[in-house]
Amino acid sequence: MQNITLIGAGNIGKLHAANIAAHPRSRLVNVVDIDPANGESLAAAYGARSSSLESALGDPDIDAVVITSATSTHADLIERAAHAGKRIFCEKPIDLAYERVLSCLETVKRYEALLFIGFNRRFDPNMAHLKSSLDSGEIGNLELLTICSRDPGALPIEYLKISGGMWRDMTIHDFDLARWILGEEPVTVHGVASALTSDAIRDIGDIDTAVVTLRCASGRLAVITNSRRAVYGYDQRVEAHGSDGMLAVENVPKSTLVKSTQEGVIKQKPKDFYMDRYPESYRIEWDRFLNACEGQEPPAVHGWDGERALALAEAAYESLATGKMINVS
Amino acid sequence: MQNITLIGAGNIGKLHAANIAAHPRSRLVNVVDIDPANGESLAAAYGARSSSLESALGDPDIDAVVITSATSTHADLIERAAHAGKRIFCEKPIDLAYERVLSCLETVKRYEALLFIGFNRRFDPNMAHLKSSLDSGEIGNLELLTICSRDPGALPIEYLKISGGMWRDMTIHDFDLARWILGEEPVTVHGVASALTSDAIRDIGDIDTAVVTLRCASGRLAVITNSRRAVYGYDQRVEAHGSDGMLAVENVPKSTLVKSTQEGVIKQKPKDFYMDRYPESYRIEWDRFLNACEGQEPPAVHGWDGERALALAEAAYESLATGKMINVS
Amino acid sequence: MQNITLIGAGNIGKLHAANIAAHPRSRLVNVVDIDPANGESLAAAYGARSSSLESALGDPDIDAVVITSATSTHADLIERAAHAGKRIFCEKPIDLAYERVLSCLETVKRYEALLFIGFNRRFDPNMAHLKSSLDSGEIGNLELLTICSRDPGALPIEYLKISGGMWRDMTIHDFDLARWILGEEPVTVHGVASALTSDAIRDIGDIDTAVVTLRCASGRLAVITNSRRAVYGYDQRVEAHGSDGMLAVENVPKSTLVKSTQEGVIKQKPKDFYMDRYPESYRIEWDRFLNACEGQEPPAVHGWDGERALALAEAAYESLATGKMINVS
Amino acid sequence: MQNITLIGAGNIGKLHAANIAAHPRSRLVNVVDIDPANGESLAAAYGARSSSLESALGDPDIDAVVITSATSTHADLIERAAHAGKRIFCEKPIDLAYERVLSCLETVKRYEALLFIGFNRRFDPNMAHLKSSLDSGEIGNLELLTICSRDPGALPIEYLKISGGMWRDMTIHDFDLARWILGEEPVTVHGVASALTSDAIRDIGDIDTAVVTLRCASGRLAVITNSRRAVYGYDQRVEAHGSDGMLAVENVPKSTLVKSTQEGVIKQKPKDFYMDRYPESYRIEWDRFLNACEGQEPPAVHGWDGERALALAEAAYESLATGKMINVS
Repeated sequence: MQNITLIGAGNIGKLHAANIAAHPRSRLVNVVDIDPANGESLAAAYGARSSSLESALGDPDIDAVVITSATSTHADLIERAAHAGKRIFCEKPIDLAYERVLSCLETVKRYEALLFIGFNRRFDPNMAHLKSSLDSGEIGNLELLTICSRDPGALPIEYLKISGGMWRDMTIHDFDLARWILGEEPVTVHGVASALTSDAIRDIGDIDTAVVTLRCASGRLAVITNSRRAVYGYDQRVEAHGSDGMLAVENVPKSTLVKSTQEGVIKQKPKDFYMDRYPESYRIEWDRFLNACEGQEPPAVHGWDGERALALAEAAYESLATGKMINVS
Repeated sequence: MQNITLIGAGNIGKLHAANIAAHPRSRLVNVVDIDPANGESLAAAYGARSSSLESALGDPDIDAVVITSATSTHADLIERAAHAGKRIFCEKPIDLAYERVLSCLETVKRYEALLFIGFNRRFDPNMAHLKSSLDSGEIGNLELLTICSRDPGALPIEYLKISGGMWRDMTIHDFDLARWILGEEPVTVHGVASALTSDAIRDIGDIDTAVVTLRCASGRLAVITNSRRAVYGYDQRVEAHGSDGMLAVENVPKSTLVKSTQEGVIKQKPKDFYMDRYPESYRIEWDRFLNACEGQEPPAVHGWDGERALALAEAAYESLATGKMINVS
Repeated sequence: MQNITLIGAGNIGKLHAANIAAHPRSRLVNVVDIDPANGESLAAAYGARSSSLESALGDPDIDAVVITSATSTHADLIERAAHAGKRIFCEKPIDLAYERVLSCLETVKRYEALLFIGFNRRFDPNMAHLKSSLDSGEIGNLELLTICSRDPGALPIEYLKISGGMWRDMTIHDFDLARWILGEEPVTVHGVASALTSDAIRDIGDIDTAVVTLRCASGRLAVITNSRRAVYGYDQRVEAHGSDGMLAVENVPKSTLVKSTQEGVIKQKPKDFYMDRYPESYRIEWDRFLNACEGQEPPAVHGWDGERALALAEAAYESLATGKMINVS
Repeated sequence: MQNITLIGAGNIGKLHAANIAAHPRSRLVNVVDIDPANGESLAAAYGARSSSLESALGDPDIDAVVITSATSTHADLIERAAHAGKRIFCEKPIDLAYERVLSCLETVKRYEALLFIGFNRRFDPNMAHLKSSLDSGEIGNLELLTICSRDPGALPIEYLKISGGMWRDMTIHDFDLARWILGEEPVTVHGVASALTSDAIRDIGDIDTAVVTLRCASGRLAVITNSRRAVYGYDQRVEAHGSDGMLAVENVPKSTLVKSTQEGVIKQKPKDFYMDRYPESYRIEWDRFLNACEGQEPPAVHGWDGERALALAEAAYESLATGKMINVS
């Protein structure tokens, strides 16, 4: 049984709290939030208590912390938890600044802390099915990977201003998926992008429509297409083309209902919120974190996965600025 | 908060126990099983205790009982719980003998007990989406309903021997779905059937492949096709044909992965076990039972729904024996 | 090279004329129509000539006749062509009266005439693919066959008045498909039906919504569901359930375009006119008729196929009248 | 009625011959082939005659020529036909050398000849449906276009050696589709590619797996992914993402048969030969050429469309060599 402190009682914190409580191998002990009333309210729903960060980190009964607070606090909290000897689950990203990620990971390394980064999509049963089919050779050698990732609608401009930009905030998931599925590090990156969906996004200098191309040393290619706005729902598809066939993950519809009328044969839109689309991924991710805590397996996603995904985002931005393919070391 | 006694710690009992424990408005207090060790084991997993039936029914703190024991015990347990003043959730069927169902429901009526029958498929989000679309007029007037219901594989012959026969055991769900979707009672029933999938089924006089046709007073038709064995998975589809279009519930695949090879474009098989196919239906069903316990709504499925479904099964058997359409009163 | 006389220059006649002209092994020589101007016009488009029936049947250079005139003329024309020693392709049905069909077929037999009935759906590449997969054992033993056949919209009431009723006019295709796919004659028939789509259909005593169930001596079952009006297009699907799997023919959409919007993921409606849905079936059917003319194979659909399909329709009407299952000899 | 000379009696020539003969507004008069016996054989099948190029071009009764001979002869034949005052239909490409295309088009311009280039995919009913839906505003403003184009299997290496390379030989169709759908000229091109499917392709310095990204002045993006080998068939899909939704053209399966077994739910592979996948496109293309010949509309695809597609291919190769985005003037 792992005793857990949850840091951050927002939406994603609530999601993790439910999974922690529901799992037979973990117990939610306390909740830390900058607004104690907020932390108190979430804690009460699961028989836990609100706590200060200091007392939680100082409590020898706490085995692990789950960091779901604001992005800007992640690196500091990881370092403090590592210093306190806790196992760490942290929502992506570690930080928006590449250098800060590096220094944080050095700290983690120094304390030999267990760090698990929340790239949840690897644990989606559909994505995981693709990966296992690929790894078992069902389509031979992978040659060309296509990731389509489009948000149902733009987030508030206030969020976007501090998001780090689309490639660091949203595509970061796709960079991680690409690395994981490719099974090989991309060595060159090319990115091209526009701001087409809203004036507000253009005005803050962000992008919303983009194509990033990755090339590995073996010649294997990957392409990621993104949009910040797909009115038909959350468009999350992957296609892996190999020497013996193709594996594709299709969208998950809201229901299997199909309506045929004079307008056509109408299927349901893809589920359009990440909590609806990926609920199982969070449950499985939590199970895998507990496995790591208990020493059954290394962390399924470690800190350097966070660093590598961000390095690809950085290279894409450099490509956009220069028009050149960028080498990633 | 409803305090619950669970009677029967088998597979379906375990499923309900988890849903009871997970729901913020219910608490699993005790588990009754003919094998006390079995009940103890399930109770421990949720902080509950094992109990005898007598003490549970006699405990004034218990608000409701959930009956998931063997079919042959259902009617007696319903009557005892009604007598004890408990709210009752009972898995289908009330009994395999039509007369016993009637006498049981009379008892329920006498005690004015709240009785909710577990026809869970009504709560499947896909089926519920069809029903709500139909009721909101999206395809105009319903004219022809088609229900395809095929099991992934035959159950053990020892189970089948005491099952009451395919139409009472398996098609009972489809009769309930048909009545619910039609929104009108069938007045004539015709059934034709064969035993084709195994000699064992033929030898015990049961059927495994069948077509039942229902006709309502309005002229509206429904047809149910069943098989006890679909090697490609659990085939559970519904089509409602109306004056302005068609609504269809398709199968739920194991994942959205599609593999294209020289063999074809291969989608995943339907989920092939009722607990995998219908997990959300049980969660929602439980929520609806709690709504009824709290007086927010009448039971979404009541005892007479169980009686009506069985009446259709009885008529189908009479049709099979006589070759005639049978009137249902 | 087969020299052909086409009798009947209506829509279906024009379709056949084009296929006759396009095929390297047939030549359209003349066209017979009750309106000579009509025949002249069609003949001119293919370098043929208008002719009287007498001179066409008396012309020794004519090898075969294609009968696409009004249903009421079919049996007489078949007999005259048989008497004249011509090979005969006749659109379904031979006649709406079962006794007239029998006497016509006796005449055909007496003259040992080659007679091919236009049940074109057997030649649809999708249906033929199902049949060949079934016959090669891809799903083991067939147990339950489902045919869904729904017209895009009701025909003019003037046509319906002389159509012979839905089961003789429309379902006749499905009876033929069922017999062909089952590979075994149905021995009992049950039919239930309503008139729901229009008052006009009810007023003339016809039906428009129906379920027919067939049972073979082996226990194999088939069910046909029909509607005279599917607003979403021409709904023509078949499912064959067997011991090792299921084979299904899906509808053919107008195009493969899929539009995803806030309304849903919208596929195209099925092609909604028989000439659009089944163009290839007519081309292949013609090729098979020429094969029969040249002695390469027996007629793929012979006169007794027409008789058997009508016998099933007759039995369905008797079942509707009596509420009983009817034995078909 | 347009009198036609067909130059080149190979596979694609035979396809055009059948369409010319079948169309009521055109007549195949003669066939020119470097092997007169070959030309004779094709001509005989349609009541035409074999002819020398000189006599065909010198014949005042010939209205138009159809050039389906080897690529290396296209530009010369276009110029000779233009000089002879004939209307010209020429299969793509005009030439593999960009400068030769320019000089040829100058000649065409000087003679004011009607030149129609055979980019047939624009006339595929599925692609045309996407284009018309897009143009009628069904998904608002187009923002991101994705073209997936993958051959069922590599062509003979002898062909590939003289093909001009994958981007000039195969992707040229996709460049044309992209320009046509975008409705705006790309201004920058980026290409990345590998040779992964065969050593032979690598040895001749060609590519077989590639991603090309196009950007228009408006910021609109397009990405083309290609492979020379898709074992599951001819993969030809397009997705247009816009402000109000997405339009996608899916593959065309060999039939609508779906087989469900223990292996999965198996749909048919895409049609895997261009003549099977695109037969209607050639028929419609021919109708549009006749429209142009009769002055009803300008050529639906003109010579400069051929030049623009080749310019994009040239830019992609320059990008591949330099790693930079290339401006296209």
